[in-house]
Amino acid sequence: MYGLMMDNPLTITSIMQHADANHPNAEIVSVTAAERWHRYRYQDAFKRTRQLANALMHYGIQPGDRLCTLAWNDYRHIELYYAISCLGAIIHTVNPRLFPEQISYIINHAEDRLVFVDPLIVPVIAPLQQQLDSVEMYIILTDDAHLPETTLANTCSYEAFIHDQAVEFDWPALDERAASSLCYTSGTTGDPKGVLYHHRSTVLHSLASASADVFGLSASDVVMPVVPMFHVNAWGLSYSAPMCGAKLVMPGPKMGDGQTLCRLIQEEGVSLCAGVPTIWAGLLRYLANNNEQVPSLKKVMVGGSACPLSMMHEFEQRYGVVVAHAWGMTEMSPLGTTNTLKPSMRRLAQAEQDAIRIKQGRAMYGVSMKIVDEDDNTLPRDGRSTGLLKVRGPTVCCGYYKQEASEAHDAAGWFCTGDVGHIDAEGYLQLTDRAKDVIKSGGEWISSIALENAAVAHPDVLEAAVIGVHHPQWGERPLLIVVAEAALTQADLLDFLTDKVAKWWLPDAVIFVDRIPHTATGKIQKSQLREQFEGYVLPDCSS
Amino acid sequence: MYGLMMDNPLTITSIMQHADANHPNAEIVSVTAAERWHRYRYQDAFKRTRQLANALMHYGIQPGDRLCTLAWNDYRHIELYYAISCLGAIIHTVNPRLFPEQISYIINHAEDRLVFVDPLIVPVIAPLQQQLDSVEMYIILTDDAHLPETTLANTCSYEAFIHDQAVEFDWPALDERAASSLCYTSGTTGDPKGVLYHHRSTVLHSLASASADVFGLSASDVVMPVVPMFHVNAWGLSYSAPMCGAKLVMPGPKMGDGQTLCRLIQEEGVSLCAGVPTIWAGLLRYLANNNEQVPSLKKVMVGGSACPLSMMHEFEQRYGVVVAHAWGMTEMSPLGTTNTLKPSMRRLAQAEQDAIRIKQGRAMYGVSMKIVDEDDNTLPRDGRSTGLLKVRGPTVCCGYYKQEASEAHDAAGWFCTGDVGHIDAEGYLQLTDRAKDVIKSGGEWISSIALENAAVAHPDVLEAAVIGVHHPQWGERPLLIVVAEAALTQADLLDFLTDKVAKWWLPDAVIFVDRIPHTATGKIQKSQLREQFEGYVLPDCSS
Repeated sequence: MYGLMMDNPLTITSIMQHADANHPNAEIVSVTAAERWHRYRYQDAFKRTRQLANALMHYGIQPGDRLCTLAWNDYRHIELYYAISCLGAIIHTVNPRLFPEQISYIINHAEDRLVFVDPLIVPVIAPLQQQLDSVEMYIILTDDAHLPETTLANTCSYEAFIHDQAVEFDWPALDERAASSLCYTSGTTGDPKGVLYHHRSTVLHSLASASADVFGLSASDVVMPVVPMFHVNAWGLSYSAPMCGAKLVMPGPKMGDGQTLCRLIQEEGVSLCAGVPTIWAGLLRYLANNNEQVPSLKKVMVGGSACPLSMMHEFEQRYGVVVAHAWGMTEMSPLGTTNTLKPSMRRLAQAEQDAIRIKQGRAMYGVSMKIVDEDDNTLPRDGRSTGLLKVRGPTVCCGYYKQEASEAHDAAGWFCTGDVGHIDAEGYLQLTDRAKDVIKSGGEWISSIALENAAVAHPDVLEAAVIGVHHPQWGERPLLIVVAEAALTQADLLDFLTDKVAKWWLPDAVIFVDRIPHTATGKIQKSQLREQFEGYVLPDCSS
Repeated sequence: MYGLMMDNPLTITSIMQHADANHPNAEIVSVTAAERWHRYRYQDAFKRTRQLANALMHYGIQPGDRLCTLAWNDYRHIELYYAISCLGAIIHTVNPRLFPEQISYIINHAEDRLVFVDPLIVPVIAPLQQQLDSVEMYIILTDDAHLPETTLANTCSYEAFIHDQAVEFDWPALDERAASSLCYTSGTTGDPKGVLYHHRSTVLHSLASASADVFGLSASDVVMPVVPMFHVNAWGLSYSAPMCGAKLVMPGPKMGDGQTLCRLIQEEGVSLCAGVPTIWAGLLRYLANNNEQVPSLKKVMVGGSACPLSMMHEFEQRYGVVVAHAWGMTEMSPLGTTNTLKPSMRRLAQAEQDAIRIKQGRAMYGVSMKIVDEDDNTLPRDGRSTGLLKVRGPTVCCGYYKQEASEAHDAAGWFCTGDVGHIDAEGYLQLTDRAKDVIKSGGEWISSIALENAAVAHPDVLEAAVIGVHHPQWGERPLLIVVAEAALTQADLLDFLTDKVAKWWLPDAVIFVDRIPHTATGKIQKSQLREQFEGYVLPDCSS
């Protein structure tokens, strides 16, 4: 028997209309290339969104068409988010920091018809135009007065594109499973893969991530997403903040600038921020060097990579800001877990609390997680049993765009994250490694991440990477590769590690290098290190 | 083009499994007839829920079957909520305070196969058993040792029913639109009508109502629903609290007992409560008389009927508790609006803030509202234009159980609430009347509620009701019916009202009575008053 409840679809249009009706005067403040701080209200944003929708319709954009954005976090990007998706087309956000060959691969693979590009990013795309067969026009995110000099052909300013368009638009009724946006993962190996979100997954992610133990968004919040809109929808904040009526502060191209972030927080009264540890390291450095305070700031969500405990303590003890550790993936919309302590945990000693807080946290509603062994048996939630992490839920992708079958999805509908870790009895996930980086020594697993974290704690170590190398007896043993700031020996480092990791985890050798290779998004490129050290013979194995 | 996201259905099962995996040790504390305070954890609750599911399966319960509960807020009722719905059957919660003829009508209309009844409510149902043709068994919510003496046939204790059942259960995969629960509205006229919720509407209501500006639920909260589980699922808290991992405190049959509520808050650290104004009046009286404080209590949600400003002030100024005004309907799962101030409003003078706070508030995500005139034209959101309130959204019913067509639903899919009011530019709804109670005088509307509120502000007025009576020139004019505590004249009252309402709103006559009739749920029964005063001739109209 079916229930007798209305069948209104869960669409991004409904988020926009809710914000327009209930929060017309909430502000969006943006830093752009041409203006210092641009400021308008949701009702202005959605009026221009309707003008943009009319412009796209008149241009001939059809449902399902892919339109590319290469843009920073600002108000025009917000208008693109809503106009494109609510029209039934697909916004394809591209990371301008990818390697040029990745950018052309992605735009060609998606067959984007239009490219909306920030003036500052025009130099990135201009050299690629000959390779981009599907692109019909480049719309530069500024007005005619600020158009940059460029070799790009078929350009037009965004303001000219939407100018003269009617401010009324009759939004189409959409299926909640209609594709809404597309984001490619930039893995450390292989071609990028496209994750194709739909309206339903976006709404459910917004609802679940707005809840108190995740973002905890309200109309009283002033939210600054310092995580880019070109990567997994700024962790969904471009949707969840309007859904809750929060004021949005968008740092534009200034995401890495501690001074601008500090000014935005202070002058706009930012209460909640989200971003990766590198961003916060920059902000904290700026605050300390300039003796600044950020009294309005209540909470910082840290994800993208593990948040060091020292960063949590500095935010909390020096600035009164609560840090919530979060973990997710492009394939997960992206949020999977956040780490807020339960009441019983707040009564523990500081060290015990810290041991919990460095974990990735517990699943938000809608995300199911399990740890499995190599035979896909589910392991107990005991905080020790380590294996592959699989996830499932309505905000997780079920495949990749234009890819017949996905190796990462199993027959029962679980997505294999490629991460290794364990879950405790209270539901807290701790990741210990990427599956392909884990070191299998005599049938047991050694966490490369744990070793790296232990090594970088040494004051003279700038960066560290651990990979497994062949060992005739144990299969693999860890090799520690280090960029050091001062003269340092293998013996110094092994001595330093002795009381920090299990004895059998101690690296068999330490190699000092000038630099460690990184991907375009700043992750250590272990695949290249493995190539570089292929055939490396450990000292005690040379015959 | 469809998105490539997983299609996991939004089911109550997913809430249960999320709570079980992530919040196994969160507590449920209950007051029951037999025990003082019963205490266990979510993992215990869901273990017994699985036992109950096995018992129901073995009994022969099929998907879609309706099972009745006549029960207070306690742990066994929670088990029933999850076992019945997650099995694919329908939990039909019945209000034991309804008139006996309404209870038999409802149970017969729903064709309930089983009745789960609290020992204290057995005397209500026992006299009706001959009329309840569909009921096969009465399961009394206690153990064998505490079974009451009763004339009920075919009884069994709940503990005997689930005893010996396996603690494992393989929950069926359900369609998210499968019916999950049934609640009848007890209108002031006509037969009760059944609202048939489904899993999807329940999950969406839980997600939206858990958000910061509604309940704001987190795992750190201790939630005491003082709104009954037999009426619209305790405002959804039976689902949203487990979804967020909050501790639940269930007052059982003691919902109206200020002392028990006070003890529960103090000893269990309750941080959030929800209930009707009458309940809070009782609690505030107890606190004041006994000089008690409730330091853990942060927020009280008040709905069911309008919350007096004096109650908000007393909670806030004397006990530091924030009051959030809420409005909803059985047809809306039930929450429609909550009233939290926007940042700009917090800078207003107290009187201006108060004028906003007595409004019903703004819509939560998922609820669309509009005010229409008698020709169904949408009226502006100007805080003045008054008309009928219509609502729409995935948590609103689209019809009534076993009723072919619903007069309350229009062709465009809007539900006519039967309420009259206006919405302002910031989205705040203010209800001024029930449509059938509004007084139409010379083409203009007079709010009976506004007049009643003004009249009861007189210190000697115990209760007041205003109805429209025929007037040869104006169509209708207001008649004020009053229960007074002391000697009071019509002239006194009209004089008192003069500076409180528009001159043309002043009642044409005041009638003093000993009592005003009420429905089973405590609402003024205006239909009966209108019958009583049918043909009443206003003093200045007698020829």
